[in-house]
Amino acid sequence: MKKLINNKENIIEEMIQGIIKTNKNVQRVNGFNAIYNKNFDKNKVALISGGGSGHEPAHMGFVGKGMLTGAVAGEVFTSPTPDQIESVINELDSQKGTLLIIKNYTGDKLNFEIAQQLAQANGKKVETVLVNDDVAVENSTWTIGRRGIAGTIYVHKIAGALAEKGADLSEVKRVAEKVIENVRTFGISLNYIYIPTTGKKSFELGEKEIEFGLGIHGEPGIKRENIKSSKEITEEMLDLILKDYNYDNSEIALMINGLGGTPEMELFIVANDAHNYLAEKNIKIFQTNVGNFMTSLEMQGVSISVLKLDEELKKLLEEPTEVKNWK
Amino acid sequence: MKKLINNKENIIEEMIQGIIKTNKNVQRVNGFNAIYNKNFDKNKVALISGGGSGHEPAHMGFVGKGMLTGAVAGEVFTSPTPDQIESVINELDSQKGTLLIIKNYTGDKLNFEIAQQLAQANGKKVETVLVNDDVAVENSTWTIGRRGIAGTIYVHKIAGALAEKGADLSEVKRVAEKVIENVRTFGISLNYIYIPTTGKKSFELGEKEIEFGLGIHGEPGIKRENIKSSKEITEEMLDLILKDYNYDNSEIALMINGLGGTPEMELFIVANDAHNYLAEKNIKIFQTNVGNFMTSLEMQGVSISVLKLDEELKKLLEEPTEVKNWK
Repeated sequence: MKKLINNKENIIEEMIQGIIKTNKNVQRVNGFNAIYNKNFDKNKVALISGGGSGHEPAHMGFVGKGMLTGAVAGEVFTSPTPDQIESVINELDSQKGTLLIIKNYTGDKLNFEIAQQLAQANGKKVETVLVNDDVAVENSTWTIGRRGIAGTIYVHKIAGALAEKGADLSEVKRVAEKVIENVRTFGISLNYIYIPTTGKKSFELGEKEIEFGLGIHGEPGIKRENIKSSKEITEEMLDLILKDYNYDNSEIALMINGLGGTPEMELFIVANDAHNYLAEKNIKIFQTNVGNFMTSLEMQGVSISVLKLDEELKKLLEEPTEVKNWK
Repeated sequence: MKKLINNKENIIEEMIQGIIKTNKNVQRVNGFNAIYNKNFDKNKVALISGGGSGHEPAHMGFVGKGMLTGAVAGEVFTSPTPDQIESVINELDSQKGTLLIIKNYTGDKLNFEIAQQLAQANGKKVETVLVNDDVAVENSTWTIGRRGIAGTIYVHKIAGALAEKGADLSEVKRVAEKVIENVRTFGISLNYIYIPTTGKKSFELGEKEIEFGLGIHGEPGIKRENIKSSKEITEEMLDLILKDYNYDNSEIALMINGLGGTPEMELFIVANDAHNYLAEKNIKIFQTNVGNFMTSLEMQGVSISVLKLDEELKKLLEEPTEVKNWK
């Protein structure tokens, strides 16, 4: 394993120090692995997300006006503990209330819900939503029910835009749930990764093999087969998404998400294949987001997310945000 | 080699189609591998850059208001031909003139200068600047003189901001040359890459080896040694930069550039190490840019650029741009 790290025990601490030193819009919750938008207005709903580290820019890279208000980072691929999550709820202390955006993994769900209960016991108004956009598997190594992956970023963007407008907690929760209802994701991987804290590989892959439906922690997917053309892979991914939810005659947002180690050139080739295929299916693309949003360390591969839009979601998607990782 | 591609002969074409379909601010020069800002004002100086592909988002990802006006993409790691470069000079047809920002590689220099001469013969006002920020080697596989690497992005940003304000060609060229004079870069790599058009590896590296001073086309660097801590590597890179140019008591911009396959977590660890070391040296950091700016396909590694600032450069660095890859 070759990594640009110092001490295995100190990876998250040093990453957060790097984030704080280089992003003037955010501040750290003293003594915790949590950051927040330092210009946050307590009269707006606070949006907090987080999870294990290794998925950067998710989630700390999405903190800023118009997206997340705060984010919490656990150890690599490990949920943050309830006290970490509670620290940023308390620090932000929104008078309108807090929405926790949770990716559906057993550890995350448990710890975010405990944090919710602790904060509620302390008089705070806290609601949660659970993102489960991955169509690949029904249950997995770390999940009961579907996993939450890159579609989560659409929840950050759209709920963040509505919260910024001053909407109430119930409204922000409603729109977050609308996104969750309408978004589906499927991912594939071309390589395995090394977990920095243990030095161990995730799943192994042969010289020509790719993993279909992988998890972002290196969990196995639904099948393994020899690599095919980008067009074949893209169409197979889209078929699984389109089979899972009715996107007929819809207008959609399309996310081509790099998993951390994918050359951007390949993301644009996949984007082109996806545009061509969706045009054949008479699905209209309102916006495409191409880049690394929800990664898995140095994983080469891609996930595709499709979000069905209505007028409300289109407007919120286009609202400005100061978050530079939104593109 | 595993890549998300279709036909090896068609990689650049499909990448450009993907870029055009997903970025509403840009348009393609009909029949050429060149794109431009479709809202460009002919009464401003046009800024054009380009080079071999495989370095995305450089350069097409930096086209937009406040940065580049146009960009040209050659085949993978191969200079674009003069007719490609001339096509976008003609398409933009700036009345104030055009500045070509060239990275110092033999092929790029030759082809951009031929394009300049062709356009001049055709009555156009065209000037060039040559970026040579890489302190690693004096001459290399593809270069006489120093190579141009990630420091080029600071030229795009700063000259782009001045051009946007309506400055004359001579002024835009002056500020571009000021950036070039004041920026230095050094890079290291943790792995080799596969060239998609040939299926061949770049240099080989052992299980624990890293390459110091690599080129962004997989050219060898100045030495190869076993991996050390991020802190040691960062300090060694910064020492080479600080030895090369006098940054004493300066205020600087710092770029931590991922080479395409580096987990963002590691970029922030390097950013933290760099901030700590520069603080010891009493060098003040005005702005830090962390992300993938000038890559080399799926290469894992990082380059550090240091740009000495004055009041003019600070102001231009902070001007807004619609380019989403500037962060």
